[in-house]
Amino acid sequence: MSNISQSLDELCINTIRFLSADGVQKANSGHPGLPMGAAAMAYKLWMGFLRHNPRNPTWPNRDRFVLSAGHGSMLLYSLLHLTGYDLPLEELMQFRQWGSKTPGHPERHLTPGVETTTGPLGQGISNAIGMAIAEAHLAVYFNRPGYNIVDHYTYVIASDGDLMEGVASEAASLAGHLRLGKLIALYDDNNISIEGTTQLAFTEDRVMRFEAYGWHTQVVPDGNNLDMVDAAIRSAQGESRPSFIACRTTIGYGAPHKQGTAEAHGEPLGPDELANAKRNLGWPLDPPFFIPGEALENFRSAVEVGALYESQWQKQFGEYAREYPDLAAEFQRRMSGKLPEGWDADLPTFPPDPKGQATRVSSGVVQNAIAKKVPELIGGSADLAPSTRTLIKDGGDLQAGNYGGRNMHFGVREHGMSAIVNGMALHGGVIPYGATFLIFSDYSRPAIRLASIMENRVLFIFTHDSIGLGEDGPTHQPIEHLSALRAIPGLAVVRPADANEVIEAWRLALAREHAPTVFALTRQNVPTLDRANGKFAPASGARRGGYVLADTGKTPDVILMSSGSEVAIAVEAGERLKAKGITARVVSMPCMEVFAEQPQDYRDSVLPPKVQPRVAIEAGAPMSWYRWVGDGGAVIGLERFGASAPYKTIYEKLGLTAEAVVKKAEEVIGGNKRK
Amino acid sequence: MSNISQSLDELCINTIRFLSADGVQKANSGHPGLPMGAAAMAYKLWMGFLRHNPRNPTWPNRDRFVLSAGHGSMLLYSLLHLTGYDLPLEELMQFRQWGSKTPGHPERHLTPGVETTTGPLGQGISNAIGMAIAEAHLAVYFNRPGYNIVDHYTYVIASDGDLMEGVASEAASLAGHLRLGKLIALYDDNNISIEGTTQLAFTEDRVMRFEAYGWHTQVVPDGNNLDMVDAAIRSAQGESRPSFIACRTTIGYGAPHKQGTAEAHGEPLGPDELANAKRNLGWPLDPPFFIPGEALENFRSAVEVGALYESQWQKQFGEYAREYPDLAAEFQRRMSGKLPEGWDADLPTFPPDPKGQATRVSSGVVQNAIAKKVPELIGGSADLAPSTRTLIKDGGDLQAGNYGGRNMHFGVREHGMSAIVNGMALHGGVIPYGATFLIFSDYSRPAIRLASIMENRVLFIFTHDSIGLGEDGPTHQPIEHLSALRAIPGLAVVRPADANEVIEAWRLALAREHAPTVFALTRQNVPTLDRANGKFAPASGARRGGYVLADTGKTPDVILMSSGSEVAIAVEAGERLKAKGITARVVSMPCMEVFAEQPQDYRDSVLPPKVQPRVAIEAGAPMSWYRWVGDGGAVIGLERFGASAPYKTIYEKLGLTAEAVVKKAEEVIGGNKRK
Repeated sequence: MSNISQSLDELCINTIRFLSADGVQKANSGHPGLPMGAAAMAYKLWMGFLRHNPRNPTWPNRDRFVLSAGHGSMLLYSLLHLTGYDLPLEELMQFRQWGSKTPGHPERHLTPGVETTTGPLGQGISNAIGMAIAEAHLAVYFNRPGYNIVDHYTYVIASDGDLMEGVASEAASLAGHLRLGKLIALYDDNNISIEGTTQLAFTEDRVMRFEAYGWHTQVVPDGNNLDMVDAAIRSAQGESRPSFIACRTTIGYGAPHKQGTAEAHGEPLGPDELANAKRNLGWPLDPPFFIPGEALENFRSAVEVGALYESQWQKQFGEYAREYPDLAAEFQRRMSGKLPEGWDADLPTFPPDPKGQATRVSSGVVQNAIAKKVPELIGGSADLAPSTRTLIKDGGDLQAGNYGGRNMHFGVREHGMSAIVNGMALHGGVIPYGATFLIFSDYSRPAIRLASIMENRVLFIFTHDSIGLGEDGPTHQPIEHLSALRAIPGLAVVRPADANEVIEAWRLALAREHAPTVFALTRQNVPTLDRANGKFAPASGARRGGYVLADTGKTPDVILMSSGSEVAIAVEAGERLKAKGITARVVSMPCMEVFAEQPQDYRDSVLPPKVQPRVAIEAGAPMSWYRWVGDGGAVIGLERFGASAPYKTIYEKLGLTAEAVVKKAEEVIGGNKRK
Repeated sequence: MSNISQSLDELCINTIRFLSADGVQKANSGHPGLPMGAAAMAYKLWMGFLRHNPRNPTWPNRDRFVLSAGHGSMLLYSLLHLTGYDLPLEELMQFRQWGSKTPGHPERHLTPGVETTTGPLGQGISNAIGMAIAEAHLAVYFNRPGYNIVDHYTYVIASDGDLMEGVASEAASLAGHLRLGKLIALYDDNNISIEGTTQLAFTEDRVMRFEAYGWHTQVVPDGNNLDMVDAAIRSAQGESRPSFIACRTTIGYGAPHKQGTAEAHGEPLGPDELANAKRNLGWPLDPPFFIPGEALENFRSAVEVGALYESQWQKQFGEYAREYPDLAAEFQRRMSGKLPEGWDADLPTFPPDPKGQATRVSSGVVQNAIAKKVPELIGGSADLAPSTRTLIKDGGDLQAGNYGGRNMHFGVREHGMSAIVNGMALHGGVIPYGATFLIFSDYSRPAIRLASIMENRVLFIFTHDSIGLGEDGPTHQPIEHLSALRAIPGLAVVRPADANEVIEAWRLALAREHAPTVFALTRQNVPTLDRANGKFAPASGARRGGYVLADTGKTPDVILMSSGSEVAIAVEAGERLKAKGITARVVSMPCMEVFAEQPQDYRDSVLPPKVQPRVAIEAGAPMSWYRWVGDGGAVIGLERFGASAPYKTIYEKLGLTAEAVVKKAEEVIGGNKRK
């Protein structure tokens, strides 16, 4: 027993506060203010409400907890350690050090119990909204009378910064629209951001704003008052709308000189102020990382209680499995992330067709074929479904009161959409997709990047992928986007050349169980290549990222390479070169990232090092192609913005033509001979 | 006189409707719905309120009008043509055609009277907020008793999509905070978006939301009722807060089968429905692009009235110039975009210092030196000013009631910030900057891209530009961002290697009168190179984007090239190679885009084609370097996300070291010999 005279609750809350402050102090880096200010509300939430099992962080029906304000990571690490997750105290002492499980911001995959990677503000609360959507959807699909297999809350702690970010506004508006009653957000209303008080830039009425979104709102005037926090969460649980609870707190609570100021936000308190804070709150100055026995005992009750929660659920699930064996097996399969057997057995193939079709159209066909066999495929578009062709036929709309629908309507909210599909993937049980025009991938980039960091299987279906969209003009024509997306580690950008490569694109994307995939699809028609007669190689080559599409059997004079809609131009150029007695190999490169992962000998077989004359053509910034064309080659791309006109005119005027490829090919052949 | 029996107002409104619908029909592409639905409110605004001079679209004190819903471009083109701008009817007939002045979405620079390039939703209204900020700021600076030289409104028409986008939420919240009383937004509340009715995804209470932001709000139950619109705008003009006027309208008004439906939104009505609409509203079926004489006469009164507005202002300005000649000259200079003479005469230089300083710190010093001479430099940070070092000393805070301040507090709203600085630049009279961490450039990309399309001189000051930020970890460490930004046409990304290159970065950025510049600056210290003793070349070389920093006089065995904080690593590697008897040239490449613009002979002098062994090192995705290292070279970069740890550890663990450069240099030298 410690000889500190404070209530058990106080003891526990101060334990969180000082574990956090000590962690930051030892690292000499980090954010003590949020953990110290929000410790009480977090304690109440975790010990009074959160249904989780610290010894099994993957229990499917656990409540989800998201620390949207990821900079307060020590709050989460403290809670995880104290409640018995596999996160030893030594890890807390290694906060922000190489190889530790306690990085500066929480990272899923790295730390047991961390549900999502947060830090970039606004993302966590949006992820949480996605989790709540997945929960509501799966509940409809799997629950049966007497069996609430899927039935949990999603809780968030969000900060001023989270609320200021537009992505949170987008997602919160949709959450209100969808009436996600099991989503409960605690807003750490501490009046402080990095530059000073929120009076500097954030004087809007936050509660009214969330009310306008359709949320249930409450104000807790003292976030350190456990009864108030308790009553608010209880009331929120009974609501059929998402809940927003503004808890007035004091950043850096307890630090006598820094509390309530920006100084407490993002740097260690310093040894003196830390000591002052400990004195102030009746805490022993030494040792650091001190955990009173009673506090630990109290926190660790979560292990037993959690085991009980899960065992009750397991018992229920066992009965459910007897009564609904297929559903139970399906639930387990879906939560495991494994695709159903034979999911890609009956995909369509597309007959040769010189007129062809837009790859967005073929993609819609393939998606629908897959959707029949893969019920976990759900998603939607940011108000562009008629154009992105991403509706699942007979899938129904996912709406308030109809959460079983598979077609989501995200509104004109690309960023919110992408953060929400991340949350859905994190929840598990669904493979989500989000669709918009490629140009608007820019609106979503922070979430796309996080999908990659978190190794989420989400599909970003981006259509209208070049100047080929035509009349909408430069504000809608992506130029730099393919290169910019290819630069993101871990992400695959797939830009299929024709309908049959589209099939392979889908195959590739779904098989990437732990990584996101971007589809880049055309608005305009592209020919469906005739792959049966030996003229063009089978589309299965696309599985290796890049492959020889057309060849002559001889060592080529030049290699033409391309992706997507420009492959047809390369093919035509190859034919024109042949007529001139020049042998050209045509390489289709739908996915550079996958090609780069192939063994060197495969890559050399596609792009023989000896064949230096190479021309790449793509209706976008050339940047990502230099690696593949090398010194002897050239890239025909775009280093300017597009233009508003019918698309064939734009291709012509901007020099993306077979003629230009032929000319450039002759140049590079000549140039290499002169070397 | 036409023999159509309708009031002059109706005639004028229907003229707008059918010019727009005919334009879309002729192009067989575009958005007729918004112009037909919003024609009445736009007519009232333009003919009843807008103070502009069609014959001088650059009159500095004109009211600004922003069509945030840029897809309704034909509305704007119709108004511009009708009120007498230099936009002939033939141009309207060439809607969405190559070379016309009527592209799919309005483009500033291309079409007289278009204040900003819109289309990507949410941007226009945010630009307008920036314009209103610039107006308020300049008014304080320039106005004197009796002389309101700067005194105009900024009007916006915004759509459902604009309101759904997070960027608009961010900017609108700040607008409310700043109490921008001369900003008036008309919300085209038509209940329809592309996928169907707003019931699908957008059921929040928009009016309450804007009230929560601190705006004055009104509802016009019938947007076709000119008296109602008139009264609302009048009331808005008298308000000291920004005004939000929700005007209930019918998309595609007049088209009997399509009005009020998503079908009217984004495609031509079709010849039959267009004819039906004309019949329905008592309009002659032929000719298309019909403009009744009375309507034209009425609209064209704007020419005379506009000339009067401007001449009154010019008269006032003349008197002002006599009383305040210096101020008047300064006003003209600032509105012209020309920098003051000698603005860069007294920039500091930094003495050699092996310990050095972070380039964000040097940048703060240089910025403040420039700010003294360039009063139009104003801006701020997205709640990171203490870290980005972008405060202007003694500049004061720009806040409600203190619009003369030069330091803006954007809150945690990177996207809103970037769209707002675009609007400020478009207004003219200021050179705005926005600052945050490089990682959060992702949040701003759509606005950064638009800065480049619009050729805006804005400065994006991005610090913490690599894994060098250390403990905050992978969510905060940019990897792909340098390449991704370099891929944007027209944008310059400057990543200075030391304090003296920072000076050149600022010089380069301000001199780019018609283009935006990104600064990439370190959190961590970098040595200030000793450029006086001949060991290192003068930093002025940075003006050419890339230059030989250190050389041996002999043909080098290998070229080491780098940018920013990794230049010091390249320098150290060069020295280690020298000790091994290998001559290395070190090239500093702070700005690839500017280097790429240099004449070939200069580029060849820096990177002699004969010297194939090359090693580039940058703490980021290698993509953008392949072009410069060529087949014989190699890139040491990062193709993974970073990690949370002290930065020196991360550099070491991820192999960004002089030792690794030496090893790679020896490899490429060997590899090239074997060729």
